[in-house]
Amino acid sequence: MECNVPTDIVFSFSGLRRRGGGTADHADGWGLALYDGPSARAFLEPTACHDSPLARFLADNPIKTLLAIGHIRKKTRGKQSLANTHPFIRELWGKHWVFAHNGTVKSAKTLKLGKYQPIGDTDSERAYCHLLEGIRASFRDPPKPRELWEAVADIGGRIGRKGTFNFLMGDGRHLYARCATKLCYLIRKAPFGEARLQDDDVTIDFSAVTTPKDRVAVVSTVPLTTNEEWTQGEPGNLWVFDQGTLKATLPSA
Amino acid sequence: MECNVPTDIVFSFSGLRRRGGGTADHADGWGLALYDGPSARAFLEPTACHDSPLARFLADNPIKTLLAIGHIRKKTRGKQSLANTHPFIRELWGKHWVFAHNGTVKSAKTLKLGKYQPIGDTDSERAYCHLLEGIRASFRDPPKPRELWEAVADIGGRIGRKGTFNFLMGDGRHLYARCATKLCYLIRKAPFGEARLQDDDVTIDFSAVTTPKDRVAVVSTVPLTTNEEWTQGEPGNLWVFDQGTLKATLPSA
Repeated sequence: MECNVPTDIVFSFSGLRRRGGGTADHADGWGLALYDGPSARAFLEPTACHDSPLARFLADNPIKTLLAIGHIRKKTRGKQSLANTHPFIRELWGKHWVFAHNGTVKSAKTLKLGKYQPIGDTDSERAYCHLLEGIRASFRDPPKPRELWEAVADIGGRIGRKGTFNFLMGDGRHLYARCATKLCYLIRKAPFGEARLQDDDVTIDFSAVTTPKDRVAVVSTVPLTTNEEWTQGEPGNLWVFDQGTLKATLPSA
Repeated sequence: MECNVPTDIVFSFSGLRRRGGGTADHADGWGLALYDGPSARAFLEPTACHDSPLARFLADNPIKTLLAIGHIRKKTRGKQSLANTHPFIRELWGKHWVFAHNGTVKSAKTLKLGKYQPIGDTDSERAYCHLLEGIRASFRDPPKPRELWEAVADIGGRIGRKGTFNFLMGDGRHLYARCATKLCYLIRKAPFGEARLQDDDVTIDFSAVTTPKDRVAVVSTVPLTTNEEWTQGEPGNLWVFDQGTLKATLPSA
């Protein structure tokens, strides 16, 4: 979720967390990272989300944010452990960078590492460490946004040739979303209406909790709601969101 | 807290969190980092701890760990924000390193930075980034424990000349505790007895929840209990704990 006004992610998270062992079998861990300026905090558990007391606590005690990344894990490589739980976080240029992956990068072991070392043993974290090192090494100083987006698309595309690399990444301001096989987004803006979750019997009327200027982008591998229009991603494309707006769609193949 | 058997930190945390705006005025943020192997997760809020629903949740839903670092903040440099909330976490050699500081390093701005950049604007995080870069740059490969401890003591001592630098740091295995002005520890081991909190009307009988082999080291700036014997630190010394044992006391001045 990426917005132009601090927003709580309870509605979307309520749908997502049902898929963590309830309506879907992504039950090997879950995480939710919430930015506050350049800094992010993450709530992580190496267990199923759908019946987690911590996940319930977060739904009951909403934290507003401009940028959040959530993940539910169905393990392919790497055991069930905290170290292997997404999203992964590192610091670059004085900001937290948050990353979550869907898919398997089969030949991740061939990806070279530099400054960032994996803590766990997933393909995902290794791919992330390689990606972030590639971004860091591409620039002497923090670049202009467009140059940065192109670097993310370029390096993400090269990793994508080694496996299935759907990912979400935040840099404290932008949300990057790369589609390898499945990804979709929508932007909620005025006039706001009702939304109904796919995975739970929950409906919200956003017109009651928003102002006309609010913009909220939501990206997911599978649509979270049944009565809104989600835009499907093209495999090999990278979306960049800023202030609840799709700023760029870049080739990333 | 550093132990030889997974232990929950609820008792100590219950005392500490009272000082976060209740029995003491460290009300500008709090954090609790809990290791699970080489990986740590942190719960952080830029607000007072003593009446925080999240802090209460953690007390009601204990997480066992071998190594935990908690902090309550009374701000001196840097505004009240998530980015300025201790403990700070970075990755080095494929492990999370967790750091919390008590005191003010007045000339922190003169400390050079390298690989690690501060996200917030505290003296504490800058000192930590400098310390971790110093450790990293001291070794080509991860060193033997004794060499590592000496590097921490040496670099910590040099930072300590620039201000008040009481700190706790974890590397996934060891707990480092440097005393500049105030720090104390105790080790709970068999025969276990009763402990009574300083800051709350709570007593626990550890003999009921332990085995004879258990060892738990607890380090704090101010003793957390009234009926146990805490060992005061010497200014300019660094303690290193491993498996609930004080492994080394090194000069760090």
